Amino acid sequence: MSPIKKLVVCGVGLIGGSFVQALRRAGMVRRVVGIGRTPDAMARAVALGVVDEAASSWADALDGADFVLLALPVGQVDAVMQAMAPHLAADTIVTDAGSTKRDVIESIYRHLDGHLANVVPAHPIAGAERSGVDAAFPELYRGRKVVITPLPENEPSAVLRVREVWEACGGVIHEMPPQDHDRVFAAVSHLPHLLAFGLVHDLAGRANAEQLFGYAASGFRDFTRIAGSHPEMWRDICIANRQALLGELDQYLAELAYLRALLLSADGERLQQHFDEARIARNAWAEQYLNQSTLPE
Amino acid sequence: MSPIKKLVVCGVGLIGGSFVQALRRAGMVRRVVGIGRTPDAMARAVALGVVDEAASSWADALDGADFVLLALPVGQVDAVMQAMAPHLAADTIVTDAGSTKRDVIESIYRHLDGHLANVVPAHPIAGAERSGVDAAFPELYRGRKVVITPLPENEPSAVLRVREVWEACGGVIHEMPPQDHDRVFAAVSHLPHLLAFGLVHDLAGRANAEQLFGYAASGFRDFTRIAGSHPEMWRDICIANRQALLGELDQYLAELAYLRALLLSADGERLQQHFDEARIARNAWAEQYLNQSTLPE
Repeated sequence: MSPIKKLVVCGVGLIGGSFVQALRRAGMVRRVVGIGRTPDAMARAVALGVVDEAASSWADALDGADFVLLALPVGQVDAVMQAMAPHLAADTIVTDAGSTKRDVIESIYRHLDGHLANVVPAHPIAGAERSGVDAAFPELYRGRKVVITPLPENEPSAVLRVREVWEACGGVIHEMPPQDHDRVFAAVSHLPHLLAFGLVHDLAGRANAEQLFGYAASGFRDFTRIAGSHPEMWRDICIANRQALLGELDQYLAELAYLRALLLSADGERLQQHFDEARIARNAWAEQYLNQSTLPE
Repeated sequence: MSPIKKLVVCGVGLIGGSFVQALRRAGMVRRVVGIGRTPDAMARAVALGVVDEAASSWADALDGADFVLLALPVGQVDAVMQAMAPHLAADTIVTDAGSTKRDVIESIYRHLDGHLANVVPAHPIAGAERSGVDAAFPELYRGRKVVITPLPENEPSAVLRVREVWEACGGVIHEMPPQDHDRVFAAVSHLPHLLAFGLVHDLAGRANAEQLFGYAASGFRDFTRIAGSHPEMWRDICIANRQALLGELDQYLAELAYLRALLLSADGERLQQHFDEARIARNAWAEQYLNQSTLPE
């Protein structure tokens, strides 16, 4: 497996920075160029030695690049692909770390239609409480699932290259159609985030909000932890994946309507059965996944 | 502050057992009698030395008792009060540890109307992942809020006694009207539990449940942790407090309807504003409460 000669990372935060650090540790990269919208953040990435230099234009950045990672909120991917398209060489391999895949793929077809052989969408299931390049660390992807959703037009060699690069970061590769990806993550990630943001917003707007929060305990703490997540990133995810997310939300609203009916009729028997089934499923999942390792964010 | 001479604990699990252990450590109790519905659990409480003996009848248990704690799922409180009423002496002080207060108070008026001076409802905001007497530990109440919702008929001396006993366990006493108590905990505890049970139940019923759970990460783990809670206890709480809980659920459903509208119209700006406000509120709460100590379950 040959090292990347010139790696370009667009968006050098937790995700992009950790990707670079993992590849450096694996001896899989020679030179790293960063590019991003915030000059201060790029200067910080240079100062920390995460990137070797910050490019001020896509022309400079992509000149001689053999591998590109896009690691920014998915709402920015479309504009970035449009900007990079004129400067992208035919043999440069591009991947991304976006939390949604259908919208990223739409942007690929819109702006990079001359490069479909070499643009391979991906999503590493990894994160941390803190964000930004200062939070980056080379172990972020160790043992984590990386979902790749190849395009029909992808060259097998490009898919293989993207696989081996993520594997060099420590990732465990799963391939999946993009529609499946977006539905799965709408259910287990995007919906819970929406629900947690919603509950905190609901309570924070009450006249007795201070009293309410004063009596909240650890159940509330854990249930709402993800309401501390990055608002812009989650806005982008919710908008990009709103079709699947609306489907999940509507299914959940039907679930709540059923629970509401059980409460109204004081049907303790069915309520307990419901709770029992949920607890069994939750404990089975926890045993299978929580014990083998810590989970990614 | 004089020690309890004969303490009766009905339901010797995590809550009742820890109460005894805390009082023993504080030198605040001489003799402890347990009573409960499961002979095995009572035998275990005796074997562990948590209680000095297990009573087989309320007549035996209450004979000479000066303090009684009811520490069982709130659905059992009414039957227990009915059973103990004929044997309760006029000067015995009774308190409980129920998660809801209006229903407990209804049972008090129904069955203990001759004892209103000395029956003081309470709710310690404490718990742990594990339940049962084996999980009991004397530090459970250290620094935890204990909400007391006195009756108008309570003797001030009885309220004071209940306060000082919970304080001896390490609790920090708050007084509150029972309606306020039940509304506050419907919002910050009962509703999140219902929502978490509901989400897990929803996903567990899918044809691709295994795939979904396979990609769930730490956000899902924390959001759904409380779906591993005790189904009978939570059935009782939801039924007992269903009036306040339905109010909270309906307000939350209105919140979700608003978020749904933002998704439908792809209103990223308002969505981000919503998430921003939630994050600010969540982080402010976390700074105020999470840093000063660990939170109770």
